[in-house]
Amino acid sequence: MIEQRHLNDLLALLRFASVSTDPSFKPQMKLCAEWITLKFVSMGLECDTHKTPGHPIVMARTKHDPAKKTVMIYGHYDVQPVDPLNLWTHPPFEPHLDNKVVFARGATDNKGQFLAHILGVQETLKSGQELPVNLIFLIEGEEEIGSPNLGPFIEAHKKELSCDIVVISDTGMLAPGVPTFTYGLRGIAALEITLKGPGKDLHSGIYGGAVANPLAELCRLIAGMHDASARVAVEGFYDEVRDLEGWEREAWSKLPITDAQLLELTGSPSLVGEKGYTAVERTWARPTAELNGLTGGYQGDGTKTVLPSKASAKLTFRLVPDQEPQVVLNRVIDHLKKHCPSSVTMEIKQGHSGRPYLVDPKSSYGVAAQRALSNAFGGAPCSMIREGGSIPIVASFKEILGVDTLLLGLALPDCCAHSPNENFPLENFEAGIRLNQELLRELAS
Amino acid sequence: MIEQRHLNDLLALLRFASVSTDPSFKPQMKLCAEWITLKFVSMGLECDTHKTPGHPIVMARTKHDPAKKTVMIYGHYDVQPVDPLNLWTHPPFEPHLDNKVVFARGATDNKGQFLAHILGVQETLKSGQELPVNLIFLIEGEEEIGSPNLGPFIEAHKKELSCDIVVISDTGMLAPGVPTFTYGLRGIAALEITLKGPGKDLHSGIYGGAVANPLAELCRLIAGMHDASARVAVEGFYDEVRDLEGWEREAWSKLPITDAQLLELTGSPSLVGEKGYTAVERTWARPTAELNGLTGGYQGDGTKTVLPSKASAKLTFRLVPDQEPQVVLNRVIDHLKKHCPSSVTMEIKQGHSGRPYLVDPKSSYGVAAQRALSNAFGGAPCSMIREGGSIPIVASFKEILGVDTLLLGLALPDCCAHSPNENFPLENFEAGIRLNQELLRELAS
Repeated sequence: MIEQRHLNDLLALLRFASVSTDPSFKPQMKLCAEWITLKFVSMGLECDTHKTPGHPIVMARTKHDPAKKTVMIYGHYDVQPVDPLNLWTHPPFEPHLDNKVVFARGATDNKGQFLAHILGVQETLKSGQELPVNLIFLIEGEEEIGSPNLGPFIEAHKKELSCDIVVISDTGMLAPGVPTFTYGLRGIAALEITLKGPGKDLHSGIYGGAVANPLAELCRLIAGMHDASARVAVEGFYDEVRDLEGWEREAWSKLPITDAQLLELTGSPSLVGEKGYTAVERTWARPTAELNGLTGGYQGDGTKTVLPSKASAKLTFRLVPDQEPQVVLNRVIDHLKKHCPSSVTMEIKQGHSGRPYLVDPKSSYGVAAQRALSNAFGGAPCSMIREGGSIPIVASFKEILGVDTLLLGLALPDCCAHSPNENFPLENFEAGIRLNQELLRELAS
Repeated sequence: MIEQRHLNDLLALLRFASVSTDPSFKPQMKLCAEWITLKFVSMGLECDTHKTPGHPIVMARTKHDPAKKTVMIYGHYDVQPVDPLNLWTHPPFEPHLDNKVVFARGATDNKGQFLAHILGVQETLKSGQELPVNLIFLIEGEEEIGSPNLGPFIEAHKKELSCDIVVISDTGMLAPGVPTFTYGLRGIAALEITLKGPGKDLHSGIYGGAVANPLAELCRLIAGMHDASARVAVEGFYDEVRDLEGWEREAWSKLPITDAQLLELTGSPSLVGEKGYTAVERTWARPTAELNGLTGGYQGDGTKTVLPSKASAKLTFRLVPDQEPQVVLNRVIDHLKKHCPSSVTMEIKQGHSGRPYLVDPKSSYGVAAQRALSNAFGGAPCSMIREGGSIPIVASFKEILGVDTLLLGLALPDCCAHSPNENFPLENFEAGIRLNQELLRELAS
């Protein structure tokens, strides 16, 4: 049974509508950062809330003993937007418990996961034990928008953040009870395209046939980003893509992940993708061009016979080693400019980006992480995977601080991260508290 | 100078937010119909407001003299939606006068135009003269949504609506002061496509590359509706299209409409369209497939890394003689089904439709209309054109009542029908009042 005070902390944290991408949530972001700061202070840690041009960063630390190793635990208190709101069965910021699973935006991604680490440390300290390592907590509020201010912050606080290893629980588990170590992540690069045609919305009867429709032109541009075999049609897009290693393809083929499961999980009519790769390989180790949103013209009830004056689309590209975000974006922009017809004008706005990441699962820290995971889940063997998502800051830790990151995820496949009805089982929340204690012990030795 | 009481009537009528496509405006629709009914009653006409499953139809009539011809004047009090609202310089339902031009949604399309006819009759009656013809006014509230209830209404009131000719002022003039007789209209057929992929919105990092994105698939389907030469790629789409006649191409080539004017009017970077036709021919006499709206995924500020579960698009097809709306729609639906991938499911909803229309400009009524137009505009010669827009009910008048329709438009090219800042010059409003008096005289003789 979960301790009520742990549950209370989780519910309190989930009640903050900390959506980082939308400026109207800024006050909630600040309140959320303050709550986390107070939590650290109540545990006796040194803690500061650092202002940034965006949302605050919370940094806490134990008193450092030079004889001990230093571990940094990273998390993020910001969450994805909640729309489509009508598909939530309960309000996303009023956490709801059902059969020992908590439903709320941010439950899994990432509040439940980083809070488990904080509570693990709280329990160790409360029991009167000494922590086996020096600890730094770094909890930011801009992960969902690409951590634009964390890189500069780490640069500016390089000395205080100096550590031996970074730990993040913001990835997934293969299945309930299957401890999972993630040794690779895809990178990301985002952009937004706006096409403009006529100076104002026109009557599609009066002008249709002679004036270019920027919404239809945008569809053609988007359609032209893939070829008939589902590969990205941008010239040079795959140039730096590193081939999968033989041992990975073999190990992955034995993982308990089937196409049938993926279909059931997603509710998709059938799987698709690049020829010559399994679904797991496509999502973990192959790059993509994904259309996240498109808007133009009339979207209300009924019909409006309008030839819209503009249309826009949001795209993100998932990248794999050794693709460089800016190199890929430049090629995409060249492609778009080459294919954009002269009957419309195009504006391109670059969004956030982050490099892909790979860590050696056979390093001593990697092995320690796998042991801790196994212990936290009752001795079950640890699976080794990559993930399709991106945590761009992992590459920054490597570049700026020179340290690797261990990804010990607690999210289940049906946790609905970024989707309506996001949820986190209390069982995993408790396992996370144990994991923290096991991990710090293993990393110390 | 316009008479103040005429202007007051116009401003009062424009203050009703009579948007027919959006159910939330229903009360305003009813109030607008009541205002028109009171207007007819105040003029001494017999008038009834007829309930329909949608919006009310107002029918008014003079006492009929069997020795006189009977003329029906048609208009519509419903208007297009106003979005994008932020592009209006004044609120669309608070009419604004600037340099003798009134700005409001519906100013041109169609309140200003049908009101001019009502006021023309009012002036004739007020001066003590006898009307030269029997008159029926038929003012509906569903033109902008394809008049779904007017056809059945005409069927049900066939005897009361029996007439010799129908008159509509809901089309355009080539330029200020150029009387314009429209002898043809394009037809229309509307449909909405919804594609569904995964059962819920997914994380585009975790699933992107293996699960079909219905928004991107929709773009591909839309892109596939045209070929590289801007022709509609639906099999059989052009089968029943009647070629332009030689005299039309020649006459149109001499009209004072240039590509430069069209570019200036629309603000479009360049003109496009089917090869072998001028811009005028493309919009007046060639069919189109136009994308009026498309929506899917995240549309707020910033980025959301979502693989959306569904996406939808609104399309209208403009038709020319002798295309049949349902035949064309069936071919489009076959095309969509053939090209829709199995990784998504498709729902198609048919919208309103209406046949294209052509009337003989050399018939006696046609010649009478041209004389009246010329007289109303100080004797200027009358131009003969077709139009790209659709007034589906014109085909119904022919089919059900067996009568032709005369289209005597008062809208200028920059009236912004269906667009922000719709407007109507008071000069054209007054010309419309004179036109009504000239026309009834010409038609009687």
